[in-house]
Amino acid sequence: MTECLYLQKKSRMSKLLIVGTVAFDAIETPFGKTDKILGGAATYIALSAAHFGIDSSVVSVIGEDFPEKYLDLLRDRNVNLDALEVVKGGNTFFWSGKYHNDMNTRDTLDTQLNVLADFSPNVPEAYKNSEIVMLGNLHPAVQMSVIDQVNNPQLIVLDTMNFWMDSELELLKKVIARVDVITINDEEARQLSGEYSLVKAARKIRDMGPDYVVIKKGEHGALLFHNEEMFFAPALPLEEVFDPTGAGDTFAGGFAGYLAKTKDVSFGNMKNAVIYGSNLASFCVEKFGTERMLELEQGELERRLKNFQALTQFEINLA
Amino acid sequence: MTECLYLQKKSRMSKLLIVGTVAFDAIETPFGKTDKILGGAATYIALSAAHFGIDSSVVSVIGEDFPEKYLDLLRDRNVNLDALEVVKGGNTFFWSGKYHNDMNTRDTLDTQLNVLADFSPNVPEAYKNSEIVMLGNLHPAVQMSVIDQVNNPQLIVLDTMNFWMDSELELLKKVIARVDVITINDEEARQLSGEYSLVKAARKIRDMGPDYVVIKKGEHGALLFHNEEMFFAPALPLEEVFDPTGAGDTFAGGFAGYLAKTKDVSFGNMKNAVIYGSNLASFCVEKFGTERMLELEQGELERRLKNFQALTQFEINLA
Repeated sequence: MTECLYLQKKSRMSKLLIVGTVAFDAIETPFGKTDKILGGAATYIALSAAHFGIDSSVVSVIGEDFPEKYLDLLRDRNVNLDALEVVKGGNTFFWSGKYHNDMNTRDTLDTQLNVLADFSPNVPEAYKNSEIVMLGNLHPAVQMSVIDQVNNPQLIVLDTMNFWMDSELELLKKVIARVDVITINDEEARQLSGEYSLVKAARKIRDMGPDYVVIKKGEHGALLFHNEEMFFAPALPLEEVFDPTGAGDTFAGGFAGYLAKTKDVSFGNMKNAVIYGSNLASFCVEKFGTERMLELEQGELERRLKNFQALTQFEINLA
Repeated sequence: MTECLYLQKKSRMSKLLIVGTVAFDAIETPFGKTDKILGGAATYIALSAAHFGIDSSVVSVIGEDFPEKYLDLLRDRNVNLDALEVVKGGNTFFWSGKYHNDMNTRDTLDTQLNVLADFSPNVPEAYKNSEIVMLGNLHPAVQMSVIDQVNNPQLIVLDTMNFWMDSELELLKKVIARVDVITINDEEARQLSGEYSLVKAARKIRDMGPDYVVIKKGEHGALLFHNEEMFFAPALPLEEVFDPTGAGDTFAGGFAGYLAKTKDVSFGNMKNAVIYGSNLASFCVEKFGTERMLELEQGELERRLKNFQALTQFEINLA
């Protein structure tokens, strides 16, 4: 009976297609350092979106060196891995970085593209009709190939970063022209638009294609722009930020996952999606890598949502 | 009849006592520069608080060089100037600064204390029983003297800055121990507490005395802390920030003015006060100096408050 209800509810959700890196990370922060641990944009997005109990699939590539136990973490959370290509004899993408004391800036110590260098994505048949497509940070050519393979999704969300603005701007702009939502951080929005004011930057970026622009400001929250409307979701002020790695991807995963669950891509519902994304990201930074996201329970998520409401809701009666 | 109603309403408001500088400023931003114009913490606080139609008095000092027309701007807004000392043959405090391109940092080009050097404040009899006391940025000795002269006010609000933390920390700490609310910016909160996390910083500062800590984050909004509760008011994202001078004082004036008008110093009502302060500050930065505040009309204030609501209010139904 319970099982039956679950299936029934699920059929009313949208499918979520995720593209992005699945990787090894080695991270150093003022609080410590890790060996090679589970990382990658698609990993964080999928783990975050999984909290909504949706049907998602990851399009990515790994090497033979990638441990089965990491894949099980995703499979256990109902993430379809049919389009996760495993390159025989290949090595998985590796990134290593060191955060400065303020935790807002970091140096990249090492990047080994490995199997990512020649990656050509294949969207599985069963997910070509996904309603929501979340293009995580990756080469714009891979993102474009995924757009070309899907059948008229309801919403395409793009996450990218300054690295691609520096190296592949023309191609990136073509991708931007084909998406509905773009999520980037404040410095990237300024770089992409040439405008310092985020209001002006968002307007210029909307002119490039996306109807919705989400500007992530790290510990200062996130802004959602649509037409002349704005919405702001704060980041929950925390006692301790332990490791910011994956926070932006976790935000994007929460955003896309909530929209997939609720099947409502209106501006009003996107506000809620931004709040959920910010909420999930606030957990991600509390421990190294994916650790906190893997132990996160539904009850914690809901308790913190109440904190978000208390943090921002006020009562002024306007005439 | 209207007049009568007005007087009746006014008698139900708290009196607001303001201490702070009344000054000349010369400002340079990427958008232009000014000659000597009207400035000073008490000026901005009084102009901001005046929007609530309250009974306020400024305790400060000026030289004979200060134009009568500037004083009329305050008198016209019902600001009592009985305790604004005019030093015969003296020159008014002068500050000159230049903002960097990001508008978040500035260099002080010149500071001439002039009549401020020997200032000893005298609170007028009629305002010794003010319910709200707003201690604007000024030498902590002057702030302390005002605290000593008032009769058990309902709320004392302190604004200060890093300059006094560097030069008069011990005295400043004695002032902090005697106030109910402190408003400082994020860097100052970190300096005062020795904590990077603003949650931890606010807790340490509350341990120094104030029950309420407001941390101003400029374009990133403001946080209000009380016991283990937090409230966040965003700054309205603007097309153009023209001149940030006086934004923090305008915030403080709106905060104190709203509390004086509503006679309610509960945490719930302080949330509204923070929203009003942030709202007023968002106007202040749109033109040079006090220009925008002087032309601001009630209707504009209310329209922008609706924007603040739209910016932050969301509807998630939690079980």
